[in-house]
Amino acid sequence: MQSEPCHDVAHLGHVEVLTDKFDESLDFFARVFGLKLAGRDAASAYLRAWDDYEFHTLKLSAHHTTGVGHIGYRVSSPEALERRVAAIETSGFKLMGWVEGDLGHGRAYRVEDPFGHVFELYWDTVKYRPPASDAPALKNNASRFHATGASPRRLDHLNLLATDVTEFRRFMETCLGSRVTELILLDNGRTGGCWFTVNNKTYDLACAEGRGRNRLHHVTYATDQREDILRAADIFLENGVHIEQGPHKHAIQGTFFLYVWEPAGNRIELANAGARLILQPDWEPVIWTEADRKKGQAWGLKLVETFHTHATPPVKP
Amino acid sequence: MQSEPCHDVAHLGHVEVLTDKFDESLDFFARVFGLKLAGRDAASAYLRAWDDYEFHTLKLSAHHTTGVGHIGYRVSSPEALERRVAAIETSGFKLMGWVEGDLGHGRAYRVEDPFGHVFELYWDTVKYRPPASDAPALKNNASRFHATGASPRRLDHLNLLATDVTEFRRFMETCLGSRVTELILLDNGRTGGCWFTVNNKTYDLACAEGRGRNRLHHVTYATDQREDILRAADIFLENGVHIEQGPHKHAIQGTFFLYVWEPAGNRIELANAGARLILQPDWEPVIWTEADRKKGQAWGLKLVETFHTHATPPVKP
Amino acid sequence: MQSEPCHDVAHLGHVEVLTDKFDESLDFFARVFGLKLAGRDAASAYLRAWDDYEFHTLKLSAHHTTGVGHIGYRVSSPEALERRVAAIETSGFKLMGWVEGDLGHGRAYRVEDPFGHVFELYWDTVKYRPPASDAPALKNNASRFHATGASPRRLDHLNLLATDVTEFRRFMETCLGSRVTELILLDNGRTGGCWFTVNNKTYDLACAEGRGRNRLHHVTYATDQREDILRAADIFLENGVHIEQGPHKHAIQGTFFLYVWEPAGNRIELANAGARLILQPDWEPVIWTEADRKKGQAWGLKLVETFHTHATPPVKP
Amino acid sequence: MQSEPCHDVAHLGHVEVLTDKFDESLDFFARVFGLKLAGRDAASAYLRAWDDYEFHTLKLSAHHTTGVGHIGYRVSSPEALERRVAAIETSGFKLMGWVEGDLGHGRAYRVEDPFGHVFELYWDTVKYRPPASDAPALKNNASRFHATGASPRRLDHLNLLATDVTEFRRFMETCLGSRVTELILLDNGRTGGCWFTVNNKTYDLACAEGRGRNRLHHVTYATDQREDILRAADIFLENGVHIEQGPHKHAIQGTFFLYVWEPAGNRIELANAGARLILQPDWEPVIWTEADRKKGQAWGLKLVETFHTHATPPVKP
Repeated sequence: MQSEPCHDVAHLGHVEVLTDKFDESLDFFARVFGLKLAGRDAASAYLRAWDDYEFHTLKLSAHHTTGVGHIGYRVSSPEALERRVAAIETSGFKLMGWVEGDLGHGRAYRVEDPFGHVFELYWDTVKYRPPASDAPALKNNASRFHATGASPRRLDHLNLLATDVTEFRRFMETCLGSRVTELILLDNGRTGGCWFTVNNKTYDLACAEGRGRNRLHHVTYATDQREDILRAADIFLENGVHIEQGPHKHAIQGTFFLYVWEPAGNRIELANAGARLILQPDWEPVIWTEADRKKGQAWGLKLVETFHTHATPPVKP
Repeated sequence: MQSEPCHDVAHLGHVEVLTDKFDESLDFFARVFGLKLAGRDAASAYLRAWDDYEFHTLKLSAHHTTGVGHIGYRVSSPEALERRVAAIETSGFKLMGWVEGDLGHGRAYRVEDPFGHVFELYWDTVKYRPPASDAPALKNNASRFHATGASPRRLDHLNLLATDVTEFRRFMETCLGSRVTELILLDNGRTGGCWFTVNNKTYDLACAEGRGRNRLHHVTYATDQREDILRAADIFLENGVHIEQGPHKHAIQGTFFLYVWEPAGNRIELANAGARLILQPDWEPVIWTEADRKKGQAWGLKLVETFHTHATPPVKP
Repeated sequence: MQSEPCHDVAHLGHVEVLTDKFDESLDFFARVFGLKLAGRDAASAYLRAWDDYEFHTLKLSAHHTTGVGHIGYRVSSPEALERRVAAIETSGFKLMGWVEGDLGHGRAYRVEDPFGHVFELYWDTVKYRPPASDAPALKNNASRFHATGASPRRLDHLNLLATDVTEFRRFMETCLGSRVTELILLDNGRTGGCWFTVNNKTYDLACAEGRGRNRLHHVTYATDQREDILRAADIFLENGVHIEQGPHKHAIQGTFFLYVWEPAGNRIELANAGARLILQPDWEPVIWTEADRKKGQAWGLKLVETFHTHATPPVKP
Repeated sequence: MQSEPCHDVAHLGHVEVLTDKFDESLDFFARVFGLKLAGRDAASAYLRAWDDYEFHTLKLSAHHTTGVGHIGYRVSSPEALERRVAAIETSGFKLMGWVEGDLGHGRAYRVEDPFGHVFELYWDTVKYRPPASDAPALKNNASRFHATGASPRRLDHLNLLATDVTEFRRFMETCLGSRVTELILLDNGRTGGCWFTVNNKTYDLACAEGRGRNRLHHVTYATDQREDILRAADIFLENGVHIEQGPHKHAIQGTFFLYVWEPAGNRIELANAGARLILQPDWEPVIWTEADRKKGQAWGLKLVETFHTHATPPVKP
């Protein structure tokens, strides 16, 4: 690992979520979850949280199945993009090359991880410019706080499955320059889960050991307060959304969470980390053992079975 | 401004606050405000919030008057320290050279801004290693959540006065590589206030136009939730602490705040930013005009007079 | 005062608020404040909070000016209504006799206080029976938590002006059997303000000394959490609602408050009392002096001038 | 049931909790749970929450086992006490007669329910008069908000087991004049659980079907905000307290809860009901079926096994 942290990648930009129930999923994300529809094209709806500065952070695409389409990270500068492309080109990972952007951003460089997930890095983005009807009362917000549904403030992270988390870690460190903040060390010596960040957030991507290819565990948006998550639980309940687990607090990362399934089955999370950030430049990854994990979540909750078995797209048992 | 952000400085490390009422101030910070006493030497108490990873974030020093002793920022690496020292040495600002550390950190390089504030940059720090009695239940926290007093999670920022905020800005950009996130543009063309960050926090240092030399407006710790600040207001009330302003929400930066005066008169703040971070690499500073400022704080509160007149040390009118 | 508390009156039932900007006021209450429209008749909209069990708690009526139309209290039983009517008939206050109800309730007995406010007592009410589209997910709630706007849970209280609060107190004690929980004793011996309850709520009606006849200071709905009020402040801000004062905490009654003006100028409040109730049967009214009042609100806030000068309908200075 | 509600009993006054680990239990209640020690006698510690107006709401008594010693309810007046005694004397339930009070209250009349629980009704109480060191900053609070541990505001309710909940209901309605607000109707026609109130609180006593005699399920204190309960969960975690279940929200009564076991094994709860009260005079009990119960708690949580098996004192399986 570099002695000096890599800052080429600025932040998780967007996640493309695939749905085979497009209209229902869109209704969930816009009306219940409280994201805003910034635009649409032939197969996708471009959504953002009210304080996301980019055109979109969620690309909801109609597909024959569920799961993740691709994961986009924004880089820190055009020069940083060049450095990343150079590092990726010599990485040995599966190069997919340059693509034109979409409604949300310009050209991007794509690479596939060993588990079928497609990542893209881009600099050239479309910044959300609100029309008068969506202008914020306070000019330092990206758009009006519309208070619709759960209305989280911004995109937070996603969680992917990989059959070999250690190899996934190598991909993240090599291609994105990500750093590990916490991880699960199994008794058998394997890494059971790993949490990565490219900036001061405690994490923007997590990876858990799991089967299949290109599988998504969940996508998460951040709320300002924990009470927002408690309130959202009632919103989900009133709207017949499947509440899978929570609200509770994770031991790992200490985030307060609530997991639901959107209508097509993709797992979506609301999370709040409080004031916790990783500012320490020489942070050592926190290692959690199986003994730690047996204690359950922070306050003892044992995760439901589906948390370990359900991901998208589904795979045969 | 650089096309690529500078990451040499990792985070605000500590603030030395001077008090001419040492015992009363220490009682306030430990018992009421809820910081932990990590150690003491001849003239100072070293305090930290329960999740600060360093030995201290507040150095409370006995002095003949009040105000700020020095401001410490931790750098990202030994190499980053060298780069900063090189930049500072050619900056034209007042060099103070290397100092040995104290109970909290090792050698540090000091420079004085044009307004009498002493800054130091350091890499070599003392990390807080809790004794068993202070060990956290969750291993990813720096120490036990002791729930004493207001018990904020970590140091957040400070606010200094300068007779020329534009010149102060030049100092911060040159010496620390700080970036401006928001600022007040007065009708007369001067910068009335400026908010700086070295990382993804919305700010770690603010500067307001004001008289005198080496003057402190306030030091701030961050809570996890806004409700913690409401609760703290009652703790301050019950302990006879002077509550100057709040709780309310700033328009600038959108932080929820509460300002009190510790027994010697230094202004101390509790703040909560929710999930708001500056992740955007090409963030443009938000500019607030006097017309904006006339509207008051986010929900209309007009700041009390003392907010504009009181700072430490006091100066003759 | 009776040695045994009077339980004839169960709770504040509804308030009729007059508006000379009906469409704008209705939009405010339904879309921004988050009440639900249960029905309409020729001159009025009948609104309720999502957990109010009655057909309405706010009767918004088109009028040539603003203020309060009448105040409705529900009694505990048909027998209790008879007892109240008997007490009122011999009270010496201005009898207005029986009226038929409206969309919200059946027959009611009306009496006018010495300051022009019309009170009615009723037993026969219309209970809100939600259509399937408004059915609650949890059967112990009156209707679906719709999460629109501020969406307070229920009606809480109102505040009226009277030129003689002591006489108003006599009216409340005699006609409603209300008990005083807190009051302001002015240096001149007069009662400056008085807070009344008919049940275990800390208060359902407050009276402040003020000019004019039939004047309303504010109507208040209760939220479940203080964070709901902080969130509502942003909703009001984004919707251009005049935020007059708050959020802050009153010393008197200790309620957390936020005052806004609806489009026609009536003052509307969101309040949260936490877990505070008056369960003590021999509660002695808490007396606040002018010296107490000089300290400001709980955390020192000095009330804005309009809080003392603005009420509805307006009167010439 | 009477057509007019009975108001003879004002509120749950105190619960005597038995412990065979007195010092550890006292440390838990005072330091961690955040009650205040008002006094002690030979076998008991008298504790109260910071805003309880009486000398005590929890009588912690050293005993050879755990569980509940007695349950005290305060009546509304001396006349009400006489009415209750008259009703109890002809009820057929087991009369225990008059007892002298203790440090907390004067003479009380005792009756035992069919399941071994001892109830006492009293008028003559000891009101807590704080010494200067415990005086509240705001005069309408009973004592200083000391912010120690979880520091709930006041006593809320308790939950007892009975082999026949319907018979227990008859006892409560006959002897205390309690009203049922919600209940569980089992498929076999029996009442599985019942929630009672004597005032506008949603409940002050709950009864669940269970084995043994004089068995306690839990005692509960109320917090002002739900966030207080989330914060308390971390306090319990840091202090090695067994967190049994929560935080989560009950479907029945909709209260937000957290259950822990104090050191001797008695189950203690923190709860928050938001602004929910039963003000409606003709409230019909809400009936929950086994089908309702299969859905789990409000947001789907399935209660842990010990919630159904653990109570105090323990009984052989």
